[in-house]
Amino acid sequence: MASYDYDLFVIGGGSGGVRSGRVAASLGKKVGIAEEFRYGGTCVIRGCVPKKLYVYASQFSEAFEDAEGFGWTVGERSFDWKALTAAKEKEITRLEGLYRKGLDNAGAEIFNSRAELVGPNSIRLVSEDRTVTAERIVIAVGGHPTPHAALPGYEFCISSNEAFDLPELPKSILIAGGGYIAVEFANIFHGLGVDTTLIYRGQEILSRFDHDLRRGLHKEMEAKGIKILCEDILQSITVDGDGRRVAETKNHGVLTVDQVMLALGRVPNTTGLGLEKAGVTVDAQGAIVVDAFSRTSAPGVYALGDVTNRVQLTPVAIHEAMCFIETEYRNNPTSPDHDLIATAVFSQPEIGTVGLTEEEAGRKFEELEVYRAEFRPMKATLSGRTERMIMKLIVNAADRKVIGAHILGHDAGEMAQLLGISLKAGVTKDVFDRTMAVHPTAAEELVTMYTPSYRIKNGERL
Amino acid sequence: MASYDYDLFVIGGGSGGVRSGRVAASLGKKVGIAEEFRYGGTCVIRGCVPKKLYVYASQFSEAFEDAEGFGWTVGERSFDWKALTAAKEKEITRLEGLYRKGLDNAGAEIFNSRAELVGPNSIRLVSEDRTVTAERIVIAVGGHPTPHAALPGYEFCISSNEAFDLPELPKSILIAGGGYIAVEFANIFHGLGVDTTLIYRGQEILSRFDHDLRRGLHKEMEAKGIKILCEDILQSITVDGDGRRVAETKNHGVLTVDQVMLALGRVPNTTGLGLEKAGVTVDAQGAIVVDAFSRTSAPGVYALGDVTNRVQLTPVAIHEAMCFIETEYRNNPTSPDHDLIATAVFSQPEIGTVGLTEEEAGRKFEELEVYRAEFRPMKATLSGRTERMIMKLIVNAADRKVIGAHILGHDAGEMAQLLGISLKAGVTKDVFDRTMAVHPTAAEELVTMYTPSYRIKNGERL
Repeated sequence: MASYDYDLFVIGGGSGGVRSGRVAASLGKKVGIAEEFRYGGTCVIRGCVPKKLYVYASQFSEAFEDAEGFGWTVGERSFDWKALTAAKEKEITRLEGLYRKGLDNAGAEIFNSRAELVGPNSIRLVSEDRTVTAERIVIAVGGHPTPHAALPGYEFCISSNEAFDLPELPKSILIAGGGYIAVEFANIFHGLGVDTTLIYRGQEILSRFDHDLRRGLHKEMEAKGIKILCEDILQSITVDGDGRRVAETKNHGVLTVDQVMLALGRVPNTTGLGLEKAGVTVDAQGAIVVDAFSRTSAPGVYALGDVTNRVQLTPVAIHEAMCFIETEYRNNPTSPDHDLIATAVFSQPEIGTVGLTEEEAGRKFEELEVYRAEFRPMKATLSGRTERMIMKLIVNAADRKVIGAHILGHDAGEMAQLLGISLKAGVTKDVFDRTMAVHPTAAEELVTMYTPSYRIKNGERL
Repeated sequence: MASYDYDLFVIGGGSGGVRSGRVAASLGKKVGIAEEFRYGGTCVIRGCVPKKLYVYASQFSEAFEDAEGFGWTVGERSFDWKALTAAKEKEITRLEGLYRKGLDNAGAEIFNSRAELVGPNSIRLVSEDRTVTAERIVIAVGGHPTPHAALPGYEFCISSNEAFDLPELPKSILIAGGGYIAVEFANIFHGLGVDTTLIYRGQEILSRFDHDLRRGLHKEMEAKGIKILCEDILQSITVDGDGRRVAETKNHGVLTVDQVMLALGRVPNTTGLGLEKAGVTVDAQGAIVVDAFSRTSAPGVYALGDVTNRVQLTPVAIHEAMCFIETEYRNNPTSPDHDLIATAVFSQPEIGTVGLTEEEAGRKFEELEVYRAEFRPMKATLSGRTERMIMKLIVNAADRKVIGAHILGHDAGEMAQLLGISLKAGVTKDVFDRTMAVHPTAAEELVTMYTPSYRIKNGERL
């Protein structure tokens, strides 16, 4: 039997890497883990966590306005960007410490180093200039925003990475992209008082989401004052004499702004990782190819999380890590379950969704019942805000199962989480109907839509 | 066949009355409905709706404080009570109009009058001084706060009815009671800047709720600055020379405050209703006794909602109304389902709950698994607020079904609504475990508690 320095070596200190390393160590395995940047990964350091904190920060401007409808007079307010970035920094540093402490307490050996594969079972720790061996290797190095180097002047643009820590808050920003990162940042910057424009090549923002939510959010964002330029792209970025960015668009002329942010997708961090030396195959996008048990093409090498480009979400990476542990260290082969993943877009208003969109369901099932409610949230009646909440349930007429649930509005993410349980259980619409309402809530609409708003048959709306 | 003026006459224009009258009329029945005060009933006029609006109003004071942790500086703010009451009045008047319009559009005849029973099938319209007859009569007259006339000086106290429309906001208030109305108003007044004290004879506020939530909310309310005097009662109320209320308590001496509010329970509005003339039986509390189909002891007379003292909640009254319609007018005998009703307390933090408490479940099942999480909500990490969120799932070990779910914290009411669907479906804890988390949300804790916090066997914690 070959002898290795480690039972398990993990490359990457994000959600998937830390979870697999920590749990393996707690099971008595000898574990090493290397991270070249900061423990916590995208989620903690420059993703979910700081994003949500900035969402909270950006929501206060509406709270100040809303308060007036409820009898409050609010004096002048001002926002200090540096105070927010410092507070965020303090919090993510605290979380980073918790991640490290968890690994340490479990007995894992922590390296602050880039790690690269140099052969089967062999990892080079770049900072220490030495090579270690491991029986099993987990690659969980995540991804990064595509720099979009084909765009002339891309080097004058920022990505979400830099957006969190800009030295000062721009007065104006142009964000390219129509995915959730572009949309969330557009709302954050707008809420913080930045003149915000979104540019997206597609017909409508947030492709792959339900069309009702896409249109609804688009409308709400424009009503707030965010400019959205669909079916348009950036052609070049230059810098003018004042240091401002001059963006040439295909269809909307020239826009001069303080910052241009590119949110045009994320790519796996596989360049220079030595994958070829270990025999690990990647796909055309550079993502590591894995089987149903997160095994790569190289024996003993596994990949988890964003680097595999399955579903780029923190809970999915953690789930894949736990399945890896079950399979490899608990003799309980477990394949990650990627079905019916509820997700949220922390836009303003928020999106929460689980299951099939109306479009997807229409292609998959012969007949659908669609239950749809659009209403003004109770808070808006006094705040005077014109926003509308949208709730939609997609039901397979054949067996009455709820196969899609889509919400636009406050707390949609929280709601999607719990609807996820019901959809996972395969609950029918009849159970929704039998559930007593909780009044006054927004979610009660989901259990009081007793008759279909319309039906879809063979993909056509009746 | 006897001939009547109406197929259905409804006494009471609240949630249950309006729903039964409107739907019966829409089915072609000749319907009359009488309301002596305002259409909309307790819920719309002096219950759920104005309460929730005032909760929103009272939450802004914390929002202003929280904003500072996120980089905002908020200037001086002031609150205008009259502006809030006027805005509330406008909104409930709008809703009242919608209720009337719904009845009108369905073809019901609307009376603005007190109505009393004068014999079988006979109703006297007091304002019109005439009597009408009906084949069926629905009594849905609701309830009112008990005046607690046994308390010397009770006439110097207000109830929730008056609290909504006080001519001015008191500087201090003493609220007697430990139920959800007392607790909600304590939080509302505190949030609006009123020096607030709660006095309750029991050991802990909110009897019948899960003990964890009761203690947790008590702690949070005290941390905010609300004084809570448990195991104490009012002995007398007098008025001093400045018009202030002087409350003598049993154990906490004399408290002098601007207002004393009694929230000591609600009683059915059955006095003087002529029930005895129609042969309608009431119980010792004055509630109308009904069978499983909301039938009273008098043939052709039905009672719905709070006046029956089954479960005093708006959605329950509406559900009972719909069951009445199914049974009497659609030839589909349907008994109201009062099992697994999710509810919320719009305290701050909020409570959301469905199913059995730990205590109830411990008496009913041999072995329980209790999953419990207590954590700081993400927003509080930057706001600096010390609040803790509590989430608890009670699982029957024998069949793994989740039989109780209890939440203390923001959006707990929205969460309870959706957990209600899962509990109604009889979902097991395994389905919760298989559900992917939505990150970062608070609700994700509900699907990531993989191991029991403790077990209960034969009612004893192991």
